[in-house]
Amino acid sequence: MVGFPVSARRVITLTTDFGLEDAYVGAMKGVILGIAPDVSIVDISHGVPPQRVAAGAHVLASASPYFPPGTVHVAVVDPGVGTRRKALAIETDAAFFVGPDNGLLCSALSNLKVIEPQTGRMLSGTAVELTDTRYFRTPVSATFYGRDVFAPVAAHLARSTPISVLGPPVDRITCLPTASPKWVGDILHGSIVYVDHFGNAITNLTPAILPANATFKAGDVIVHGLAPSYEAGPVVAIVGSSGFVEIAVRDGSAAMELGLRVGDDVVVRSRS
Amino acid sequence: MVGFPVSARRVITLTTDFGLEDAYVGAMKGVILGIAPDVSIVDISHGVPPQRVAAGAHVLASASPYFPPGTVHVAVVDPGVGTRRKALAIETDAAFFVGPDNGLLCSALSNLKVIEPQTGRMLSGTAVELTDTRYFRTPVSATFYGRDVFAPVAAHLARSTPISVLGPPVDRITCLPTASPKWVGDILHGSIVYVDHFGNAITNLTPAILPANATFKAGDVIVHGLAPSYEAGPVVAIVGSSGFVEIAVRDGSAAMELGLRVGDDVVVRSRS
Amino acid sequence: MVGFPVSARRVITLTTDFGLEDAYVGAMKGVILGIAPDVSIVDISHGVPPQRVAAGAHVLASASPYFPPGTVHVAVVDPGVGTRRKALAIETDAAFFVGPDNGLLCSALSNLKVIEPQTGRMLSGTAVELTDTRYFRTPVSATFYGRDVFAPVAAHLARSTPISVLGPPVDRITCLPTASPKWVGDILHGSIVYVDHFGNAITNLTPAILPANATFKAGDVIVHGLAPSYEAGPVVAIVGSSGFVEIAVRDGSAAMELGLRVGDDVVVRSRS
Repeated sequence: MVGFPVSARRVITLTTDFGLEDAYVGAMKGVILGIAPDVSIVDISHGVPPQRVAAGAHVLASASPYFPPGTVHVAVVDPGVGTRRKALAIETDAAFFVGPDNGLLCSALSNLKVIEPQTGRMLSGTAVELTDTRYFRTPVSATFYGRDVFAPVAAHLARSTPISVLGPPVDRITCLPTASPKWVGDILHGSIVYVDHFGNAITNLTPAILPANATFKAGDVIVHGLAPSYEAGPVVAIVGSSGFVEIAVRDGSAAMELGLRVGDDVVVRSRS
Repeated sequence: MVGFPVSARRVITLTTDFGLEDAYVGAMKGVILGIAPDVSIVDISHGVPPQRVAAGAHVLASASPYFPPGTVHVAVVDPGVGTRRKALAIETDAAFFVGPDNGLLCSALSNLKVIEPQTGRMLSGTAVELTDTRYFRTPVSATFYGRDVFAPVAAHLARSTPISVLGPPVDRITCLPTASPKWVGDILHGSIVYVDHFGNAITNLTPAILPANATFKAGDVIVHGLAPSYEAGPVVAIVGSSGFVEIAVRDGSAAMELGLRVGDDVVVRSRS
Repeated sequence: MVGFPVSARRVITLTTDFGLEDAYVGAMKGVILGIAPDVSIVDISHGVPPQRVAAGAHVLASASPYFPPGTVHVAVVDPGVGTRRKALAIETDAAFFVGPDNGLLCSALSNLKVIEPQTGRMLSGTAVELTDTRYFRTPVSATFYGRDVFAPVAAHLARSTPISVLGPPVDRITCLPTASPKWVGDILHGSIVYVDHFGNAITNLTPAILPANATFKAGDVIVHGLAPSYEAGPVVAIVGSSGFVEIAVRDGSAAMELGLRVGDDVVVRSRS
């Protein structure tokens, strides 16, 4: 990896729907540290709602850009564990990604221009299907690929095992359909794609595509223009930390107080 | 410890009922890093239900087998803190265990054949009562042995302090009665011992003891045979990642949807 | 820093109201590890109730004393992000503190005698306003100083960047009014300042200020004397792990069962 300082400790991140109450996350970390004792393991989130692949994809894509080059990102939201869905590892100039082939990795890879978002076709980097069981814990549990496949493979990648030995290359990965904003006449239709811990409703709208003097309608609320801070409220539209417009309530929860949910429409007009 | 690579960083794990909102877990980690700055600290869980020693024992026993040799496992679910219950450290070929003498460590030690499960008698390894206050933070708070006793002792063990200096040996530890499956005629009676984050109801039944063509009855639901994956549902019996049969609902919660709880019977017959 | 072992790994702690579901905490850690790959990052809490600066101040002050010298404590409970409130870094003999100038750092600093609690005036150490954007991620998001200002500044401090280069010194920081116990005649009026994960109601009363034979009235319950352990219950007053009296229910929640909340009065008399 060009420019990666070899003396630095490698980082492995984890993004799952496992929760923090049980033994599952700990078991994954134990497996990793048995293979690669010097890595830094960072939890991105284990609070993805169970089996919600799209939410996991959003979280991974939101956090992964801020990690150093060579980081290995492991993501496991995997309702199909034990079925024939593929297990993947992907190398890019920025990072490695390891997880099931169910759409979970697509947003992060699409942001990096590594895949074509509609088709999942690889545009750069290397993707392989994980088939070589020498890099797995064996026997592999039918219910816990996180511990037995994804964790050990990530640890081997962090120890500079070449990705090509893990299995055969694939030229296309599975992606879920995603909602893009659409113009209908002079009205822009976006939607809410994620609700965060504060109840902020994050949309798929970037400032670049907004009309001049934009007015946002979400649920029953109408907001004029973009605010410079949450404190400009009571209700604001503001450019959030990942570059997307979010609807927020000052010192409160937009989701709770305005009844906003993932999938709701956000309609944008130019104030005349 | 034979085979332990001395150059590897030591691992200390934490399993508690402290939750993650308060300062308690952070204080323990601060104490550890002040004594042993180079260890990797791994959270197994801080979400054990308050004072539920049996649940903590299950979580510790489920995660600890996956850590490298020489790992120090600290567990604190300790309603008797400040009373006369003993504080323990135990060395085995696989790992160290540190915690209160209230049953919390028994499942993990029993799985390692270090203790006799019914009596808690030591069969191998070394157990000591923690009495030498030179290895404690002082004064010791009556309400927080985790910070003042267990954390510093674990850090000293991770720095290779011999266990024998920590206090006098004990030849028996306290264990809670555990429910084992029982045959009554040709019917096998098991029970649910843990419900995980997904609502999967984990039993005390291993595949080896099941009759041929097993049929499981749990609550009002009857399931025929073992499934290869959760997706074989809607309701499945499946061998989970620790080797025990669990009752699961595809993309749902068996605990919520079937009303299953810890302690419920699971009755197994051979389908005729 | 006198006595700081230069070979030891530096520690950076995080205390926020970000929760653990989203990408925010992971993004902060990615930024830190990109600048200072060898630090140990410790989560104190990400479960501070949203925008509750006083609760965050309590958690930080409760955990920070247990970390090794030179630790960098980052705290972000920041409803005013993006407004004109200052961003601060403070160096003391014990540790560094980084966060918004909204009262969040005051309890920890006041315990260290670094500030005058009523006025926030600096008594020792060095405080600076963070103004030099060379130590920030740029552009700085108006909604996420944690990632773009506080995380990178903390990482630079952990790499021994002198605090004086980060911005101009300040001689006074913002502190919130705090409730101190008060004598009215021969009755001592304290209050509940924090409720923990177990439902223990922690007061602002230390044993040193209590009258002889103290009797505590909190809500409808009256407790005589201080107990040696939680098991002395059913309801006890006990000196908790930070040195303050707490009201607790054995194997239960004082907050739930007695209806106690932050801000409630605790009245202390000498039993005649």
